[in-house]
Amino acid sequence: MSTRFDNDFERSPVGDPDGWEKLDSESLLDGTYLQVEEARYRTPSRPEGATWTIAHRKSAIAVFAMNADNRVLMIRQERIAVRRALWEIVAGQIDDVGHPHDGEVIRDTIERELAEEAGYGVVPGGEILPLGYYYTSPGYTDEHIYLFLARAVEPLPGGARPDDSEAILDLALFTVEELRGMIARNEIVDSLTLSAFARLTARGLL
Amino acid sequence: MSTRFDNDFERSPVGDPDGWEKLDSESLLDGTYLQVEEARYRTPSRPEGATWTIAHRKSAIAVFAMNADNRVLMIRQERIAVRRALWEIVAGQIDDVGHPHDGEVIRDTIERELAEEAGYGVVPGGEILPLGYYYTSPGYTDEHIYLFLARAVEPLPGGARPDDSEAILDLALFTVEELRGMIARNEIVDSLTLSAFARLTARGLL
Repeated sequence: MSTRFDNDFERSPVGDPDGWEKLDSESLLDGTYLQVEEARYRTPSRPEGATWTIAHRKSAIAVFAMNADNRVLMIRQERIAVRRALWEIVAGQIDDVGHPHDGEVIRDTIERELAEEAGYGVVPGGEILPLGYYYTSPGYTDEHIYLFLARAVEPLPGGARPDDSEAILDLALFTVEELRGMIARNEIVDSLTLSAFARLTARGLL
Repeated sequence: MSTRFDNDFERSPVGDPDGWEKLDSESLLDGTYLQVEEARYRTPSRPEGATWTIAHRKSAIAVFAMNADNRVLMIRQERIAVRRALWEIVAGQIDDVGHPHDGEVIRDTIERELAEEAGYGVVPGGEILPLGYYYTSPGYTDEHIYLFLARAVEPLPGGARPDDSEAILDLALFTVEELRGMIARNEIVDSLTLSAFARLTARGLL
């Protein structure tokens, strides 16, 4: 498999040390899935410091996977936080604690999520192409998602093996035109799929 | 000004009542900017219920604003949650408490944020076109952002009047090609701008 990963994953995209300094911090919530702190930071434009509520989440990967016919692999899953089922690309949190991530941890996560959520894998000789990352909501959380294009993917013999905590209702392979229509009609409403689509379009890959 | 808003804003995009029912809930954090609960929901595929940590945030608007020369209005602001300054489109939370939002609240928020963050306004006869909404991270939060295209925009006489809590460092008008390059090169990394770009591209508006 061609992976063409550079070293970008070894440095966290959170935190530009130049001019930033944590002055104070208080934990507001230390949960299993979410940690919240009220922190005071010196910033380049605010040397006196500014206080902010920050939610910490594990980083994650999201993978825009296409089969040999250029169809996009999507899953429909129940999302309890919004109490709806959504069509989305495959995604999952990176279990490795903290940074730096190396390319192998990232690649393992991509392959694990493709297998678990969809029962798919990358074909021999296929590629996983990094598409950068994005912040889901930088106004309050450091959560960031690494985006990838994987092609071609194919069904694995065993089928999907979803995690107990997930409720994946459906799987489909959409053409790029179908996906474009779903995005235009507000039927695709998650930042994972929209951000991957933006990167792919901007890079001329769709 | 032409606003062409339909009635979509009067119904919250969070919660499809059919088959969903809250069974239990415990507040983990009741903060000013963020509320977190552990909730147990009956879902269509899990009638026995499933427990989830859910972060609640106000909904927000983000506006892809273009001037008469089809340049895109962007601001660069310090984002304490990720300790970096990011180039993003104009955005802001909707202060109205709870739903339903009517079109007027949404339009007021768009105009307020354009004026406060950038010192811009929509020209007489200009339009604000809804581009749907998206969830920033539906794996754990109900936060959702309503996206808009505003054109044409022009500088207001008074200039920007940023909120004290914001640190906006710069403002620029990029061509669509420049923006596309910034997205491709991973220089645009916020879900707001990426999701708006995806919707506009999918709808053939860029």
